Amino acid sequence: MNFINRTLMLVAALLCTAYGSFAQGQNFSDIASSVLEVQQYERAIHIMVMLLIGFGFLMVFVKKYGRSALTATFLLVSVAIPLYFTLCDFEVFSEKKGEIVTFILAEFGAASLLITAGAVLGRVKMYQYMILAAMFIPFYMINEWIVLEDGIGLMKNGFADTGGSIIIHMFGAIFGVSAAIFLTTKKEMDTPVECDATSDRYSMLGSMALWVFWPSFCAALVPVELIPHTVVNVFLALCASTVITYIMSVLIRGKINIADIANAALAGGVAIGSTCDFATHKEAMVIGGLAGALSTVGFAIIQAKQKNFLKAVDTCGVSNLHGLPGLLGGLAAIFVVEGLNTGSQLTGIGITIVCALVFGLTTGFVVSLFGRRTEAYHDSEEFEDAE
Amino acid sequence: MNFINRTLMLVAALLCTAYGSFAQGQNFSDIASSVLEVQQYERAIHIMVMLLIGFGFLMVFVKKYGRSALTATFLLVSVAIPLYFTLCDFEVFSEKKGEIVTFILAEFGAASLLITAGAVLGRVKMYQYMILAAMFIPFYMINEWIVLEDGIGLMKNGFADTGGSIIIHMFGAIFGVSAAIFLTTKKEMDTPVECDATSDRYSMLGSMALWVFWPSFCAALVPVELIPHTVVNVFLALCASTVITYIMSVLIRGKINIADIANAALAGGVAIGSTCDFATHKEAMVIGGLAGALSTVGFAIIQAKQKNFLKAVDTCGVSNLHGLPGLLGGLAAIFVVEGLNTGSQLTGIGITIVCALVFGLTTGFVVSLFGRRTEAYHDSEEFEDAE
Amino acid sequence: MNFINRTLMLVAALLCTAYGSFAQGQNFSDIASSVLEVQQYERAIHIMVMLLIGFGFLMVFVKKYGRSALTATFLLVSVAIPLYFTLCDFEVFSEKKGEIVTFILAEFGAASLLITAGAVLGRVKMYQYMILAAMFIPFYMINEWIVLEDGIGLMKNGFADTGGSIIIHMFGAIFGVSAAIFLTTKKEMDTPVECDATSDRYSMLGSMALWVFWPSFCAALVPVELIPHTVVNVFLALCASTVITYIMSVLIRGKINIADIANAALAGGVAIGSTCDFATHKEAMVIGGLAGALSTVGFAIIQAKQKNFLKAVDTCGVSNLHGLPGLLGGLAAIFVVEGLNTGSQLTGIGITIVCALVFGLTTGFVVSLFGRRTEAYHDSEEFEDAE
Repeated sequence: MNFINRTLMLVAALLCTAYGSFAQGQNFSDIASSVLEVQQYERAIHIMVMLLIGFGFLMVFVKKYGRSALTATFLLVSVAIPLYFTLCDFEVFSEKKGEIVTFILAEFGAASLLITAGAVLGRVKMYQYMILAAMFIPFYMINEWIVLEDGIGLMKNGFADTGGSIIIHMFGAIFGVSAAIFLTTKKEMDTPVECDATSDRYSMLGSMALWVFWPSFCAALVPVELIPHTVVNVFLALCASTVITYIMSVLIRGKINIADIANAALAGGVAIGSTCDFATHKEAMVIGGLAGALSTVGFAIIQAKQKNFLKAVDTCGVSNLHGLPGLLGGLAAIFVVEGLNTGSQLTGIGITIVCALVFGLTTGFVVSLFGRRTEAYHDSEEFEDAE
Repeated sequence: MNFINRTLMLVAALLCTAYGSFAQGQNFSDIASSVLEVQQYERAIHIMVMLLIGFGFLMVFVKKYGRSALTATFLLVSVAIPLYFTLCDFEVFSEKKGEIVTFILAEFGAASLLITAGAVLGRVKMYQYMILAAMFIPFYMINEWIVLEDGIGLMKNGFADTGGSIIIHMFGAIFGVSAAIFLTTKKEMDTPVECDATSDRYSMLGSMALWVFWPSFCAALVPVELIPHTVVNVFLALCASTVITYIMSVLIRGKINIADIANAALAGGVAIGSTCDFATHKEAMVIGGLAGALSTVGFAIIQAKQKNFLKAVDTCGVSNLHGLPGLLGGLAAIFVVEGLNTGSQLTGIGITIVCALVFGLTTGFVVSLFGRRTEAYHDSEEFEDAE
Repeated sequence: MNFINRTLMLVAALLCTAYGSFAQGQNFSDIASSVLEVQQYERAIHIMVMLLIGFGFLMVFVKKYGRSALTATFLLVSVAIPLYFTLCDFEVFSEKKGEIVTFILAEFGAASLLITAGAVLGRVKMYQYMILAAMFIPFYMINEWIVLEDGIGLMKNGFADTGGSIIIHMFGAIFGVSAAIFLTTKKEMDTPVECDATSDRYSMLGSMALWVFWPSFCAALVPVELIPHTVVNVFLALCASTVITYIMSVLIRGKINIADIANAALAGGVAIGSTCDFATHKEAMVIGGLAGALSTVGFAIIQAKQKNFLKAVDTCGVSNLHGLPGLLGGLAAIFVVEGLNTGSQLTGIGITIVCALVFGLTTGFVVSLFGRRTEAYHDSEEFEDAE
């Protein structure tokens, strides 16, 4: 009640003061839309916290590879965003949008790239991360253009993926694992990734930074009136996946694995992406809980087997955190979003899988031409005074 | 001046574009209120940073208990928020509110729960933290209903506690210390809590995250026109308590204690809660300074004696950071808030003390039925590969 | 398109609800301006993250000096902001502004102070940091008053420095290095600053916190309609300086230096300050890239020579991160900002250099009267139980 009164007062205030400035010759509607754009910018900042501090610190767990992981994060983001932005300016794929909208779309691309990088983490040099970024972004934009903007006429009946379960998370995961096939040496297949003993708290910091700001990621471009419902959905999905991850981790392993908590707790955010603005609160919790369970099974059981099956090492286990929960989220939309065309949703998912596979293999091959490591991951290879 | 001009232009812009869309049949007032609701959501995100990164890292100081503290934080929040939200949906205690308002109230409950958990930190297992959360939230809501919503007719004359000095901080502290009475073994009474030598920077990270976002906590549900004054008050109170904490720490101990700085510096935020929207800037600084002094005295002098008096160990010293400064803040309202009914304010404080004691003892007893630790706190009990 | 529609609907919503509340006798225009003020507050919070977590953790690299660096950051901010605020209240230098505007200006002052403190880090005691803060703020306000408010009639033709390249960054750097001249013992000249082996990840955390929130720093007081363009400019400048820093670090040193990355990557933010709201995106990237190159040259080459030239140790290398890139940014405005009076811009830069030098030397001399350290930097001097 109080809130509505307050709104009414605000409006009356606006009305009252309006007459005084009516005569001024400025481009008024530009200013009005800026107010809403600044609210979008707030969310753009939140996403940037996720990209640098979230992804960056979540990846600081490989032994003697902390400096590399953080520097790689910095470089990947710093190549991806201006590149996406520039390609948009040239209207390569689609018509020009507002600056902040374009910036947020660039951040989405950078997020997908960081997921890909998580799969090959520790096996490429800094300049190779930059080549990876330079190849990934145009490929990502092609898939985005085909699926979201109906670039080649296959997606006339719509596609539900507001928060990017498919377009961002699953695409990045499949792209990364595909690229990893060309970037995994035989030696690496036999050597398990060693964890830094003291890195758990850094990983949890990264994980928490992702968790906290995830609602702004999903709601970044959602219409203002749907934001409250959307962000609450995302939080509830994350709560559900966090609790389920704890339970599953103990059930499967006997004890809690801190990497399960740091990673699978986020699966709810990945999976709720496609339906964050449509799901009811209950549906959000169910999707989040299922995603947490699926992701923990991935880390605790599938991860060990995947290496032999794929002949590739997925350093961060992105297929378990982003791949499977992303797919789950995209499929959940079929049951949750009213009026959604099932065939169209499946087509979009299928196109994304094919694109990610083909583009990922191509990119992995090209990046591998610039050199493959033969030694274990180590900061000292590229950094001064490294431990 | 410039600001007013800008406002006028904005308003005129709104007015000009209004006619064009007047004809559309949408539910317009919903959209308008969403703009303000998104501003509330920004503050909800800030509070979530405080809950996970703030409280989480502030509690990472017990030796060999870092993983447990962070995982417990994750689980406590993930149980508390959906539970609060669901109980609100059923309108158990009060009539339904907007989604974001309800979410922020749920975050307040989670904050109070984390304070309680700080008192028993290191003495319960993960599933016991979850039982603690499941019992705490309904109890917290009963007290909230009685004091803030006048649930049983004792609070007809109002109660000043905008930022929750009493309802959130003091309630959580007394609840926690009461619960600790049933959860402190004789052995724990004799063994001091050992600090991790390298944890000080993590604790300072948690402390700074709390400090920085505290104004959004206090102003979360404050009317838009009072927010500027409120947030400046909170910052000034925090500045005062930080400086006074340094001075008192050196005066009492001879040297600075880093735990004093990480904790007591926040006491200004705790104490200004009740009066954050009413106090003048000077009053805010006085309240903040007094709270910093009181809290440092608590950590430096009272803490050691409290153990024998209460027959309970308060792991994080929540009675010194949240208990005493919270009470101070609630009492300060009597002098600061114009027209406040003294009797009513004291009644609200008294009810909260009684509720927290009774509910805390009950909860501590029930949680203790699920097992009491006999060994020193250690991550390896519940976590794989722990140091 | 969608965005404009949304705006129109919002406006119509406001209009529709307006009539209902028109009759109410409140001060309506106050409420309307509060909506914009809350958006400024969001940016004020972002700046506070930069001050405490950003600067604080960026400075946690001196061996056995982590507690001191973080506590000093806390104290410097907590002295500076209330002091600035109080001097504004007394209208010592200029007429009163809104609470949030004043608060943001106080944060700018605190940022400049933290830069100064970076130059003398490790060579003064806690109470000396507080004396430093108490002297710095009035001096900073004098320079601000002369250059930005044309206090003594020399700046009638304007000055471009929206994000404070000159007024905040260069001023703080020169002030700090000047103060350091009186605060560097002969022994310190011969002993290089030792880095903590495990501090690199903390420094990167601080650096990333600064990077992420920098756009809110530059756009804090920018009119709402210019914010989208401004923040994108700042992000693009930071991306450019990050990539260039990596390239220059490898070119000059052969390997990457992690301190280069943590510091020089931010130079783009420093340099874009003066022109953030005027530059095109391309200009922003050029300025950012040049600043990254200049700053890396500073850290990799100039830093070692500077010590002998200045007879002072600049602990954090603030002249390389804030001094040179700040000057670059201020000069860039001459080429980028249309209609800017070159003489006036150069006058403002000149005044700031002279003020910073004179005030810095004075302050360094006074602070040195309160004692000079003779031993190497060490937490244990002032902290209990330090490693």
